[in-house]
Amino acid sequence: MSSPHLQTYNERARKHTNKAASALLRVMEEKQSNLSVSVDVTKSKDFFDIIEAVGPHVCLIKTHIDILEDFDATVIDRLRELSEKHKFLIFEDRKFADIGSTVALQYSKGIYKIADWAHITNAHAVPGPSIITGLASVGIPKERGLILLAEMSSKGALTTGSYTEDAVRMARARRDFVIGFIAQHRMEGIGASDTDNIAEEDFLVLAPGVGLDATGDTMGQQYRTPEQVVFESGCDVIIVGRGIYGKGENVDTREVLKQAQRYQAAGWEAYKKRVQCI
Amino acid sequence: MSSPHLQTYNERARKHTNKAASALLRVMEEKQSNLSVSVDVTKSKDFFDIIEAVGPHVCLIKTHIDILEDFDATVIDRLRELSEKHKFLIFEDRKFADIGSTVALQYSKGIYKIADWAHITNAHAVPGPSIITGLASVGIPKERGLILLAEMSSKGALTTGSYTEDAVRMARARRDFVIGFIAQHRMEGIGASDTDNIAEEDFLVLAPGVGLDATGDTMGQQYRTPEQVVFESGCDVIIVGRGIYGKGENVDTREVLKQAQRYQAAGWEAYKKRVQCI
Repeated sequence: MSSPHLQTYNERARKHTNKAASALLRVMEEKQSNLSVSVDVTKSKDFFDIIEAVGPHVCLIKTHIDILEDFDATVIDRLRELSEKHKFLIFEDRKFADIGSTVALQYSKGIYKIADWAHITNAHAVPGPSIITGLASVGIPKERGLILLAEMSSKGALTTGSYTEDAVRMARARRDFVIGFIAQHRMEGIGASDTDNIAEEDFLVLAPGVGLDATGDTMGQQYRTPEQVVFESGCDVIIVGRGIYGKGENVDTREVLKQAQRYQAAGWEAYKKRVQCI
Repeated sequence: MSSPHLQTYNERARKHTNKAASALLRVMEEKQSNLSVSVDVTKSKDFFDIIEAVGPHVCLIKTHIDILEDFDATVIDRLRELSEKHKFLIFEDRKFADIGSTVALQYSKGIYKIADWAHITNAHAVPGPSIITGLASVGIPKERGLILLAEMSSKGALTTGSYTEDAVRMARARRDFVIGFIAQHRMEGIGASDTDNIAEEDFLVLAPGVGLDATGDTMGQQYRTPEQVVFESGCDVIIVGRGIYGKGENVDTREVLKQAQRYQAAGWEAYKKRVQCI
């Protein structure tokens, strides 16, 4: 059995036991896209202008629902409609980071009820395994998937060495719910013991900090190209934000579409180059 | 100069350069309370029943605003009114955990506009210093204070060794905005170099996981007594949730009041025992 990143998304979709992961891999192959657009804007008009433009070209829309200033329940309805129309999954980038009992409430309750509409969400490993227990108690009955943050792309991040190993061990213990990582490299086998069956592991790797033009911002964010993250490092999904829609105000949808196509093509080319290496 | 935890809250209030920290220390001395109640309920009626009952006995109300199912703008108005009426500060336990540009939006924008009403909020150190830069760009103009998570009380938490040291170093570099830690011990001097002026440091230590009766829950939370955290470990604020209001549904306000008084007394006694050690 070759490493997951040397298999096609389709092969992996057939074998994956988590439904959210399987659905994502299938969409990636069907749409020939490993592009996720991170829609980090504060007005719902800009939010939907961007999603309408990029929808046909992405496998995954990444949201920060809590920055939308004019949020109401219709936002979720419309987001779900677009998800079905354009066949993309929704990833709420909540970065849960509390103890189990609290994250279970944050995931299921409140204004946002994230578990009701986000196929995928994510969490930090820092609170220990209870964060997965808490989120799984809500997410598993709804067939959701969880991404753990094993690495961060910001300068001086503390996700190094044993931290990353511990995060992967936590994921390995809950492969029914943890489907992958926010990271810059593949994670199978990291921190594994002799008794772990790592040949069965298939963790999706979603890489943020991807840019074709910029190399960094003033708040410590660092960028790599799709070629670097998908072909060289074996990541599965490239996450792109401002590289596609700039400041995200008064969006020029033709320009956004053009950039989405450019990133889609770059990401897919890097993937094809990778799986042809089998 | 003796260590901060051997000085009175009043002495520390006079010297502290951050206004939110200074205000909190003053309230603690005035109300003879180092008790913070964590109001982890999902209905605003329960939320306000608890706050009305415990308000006169706490220095700080800790909220998870995003679990309230019937949240609207009047919740914030009423919370602010109660904060002024009963003289407590508000601590939104958001556990920010993203890169600088994102947390700046999450703190200032969206439905909640946390920076507008929470005197204090908190963040994980895991993204590196950019998270403080991002939050400070919003919080400093509003005279807010930030708490970093240096330790967590859940089982298997990854906040160990160099992680805690790195968190304290990040705080030390931004003492204009970072006023303390969620932790179980004092943090002054941790990870300091010879050139750091640690005699000037006064980090508030807010300790979660405090209980007089319980020792743990099913999701990995562990409990210590006020005596242990305030007298033995030198923490400044005890954070108590279910120990005071149980499940938090159909709240018996007389029982909640009784428990709040009990924890207030236990916390204050441990503090008096501590400062008399000077």
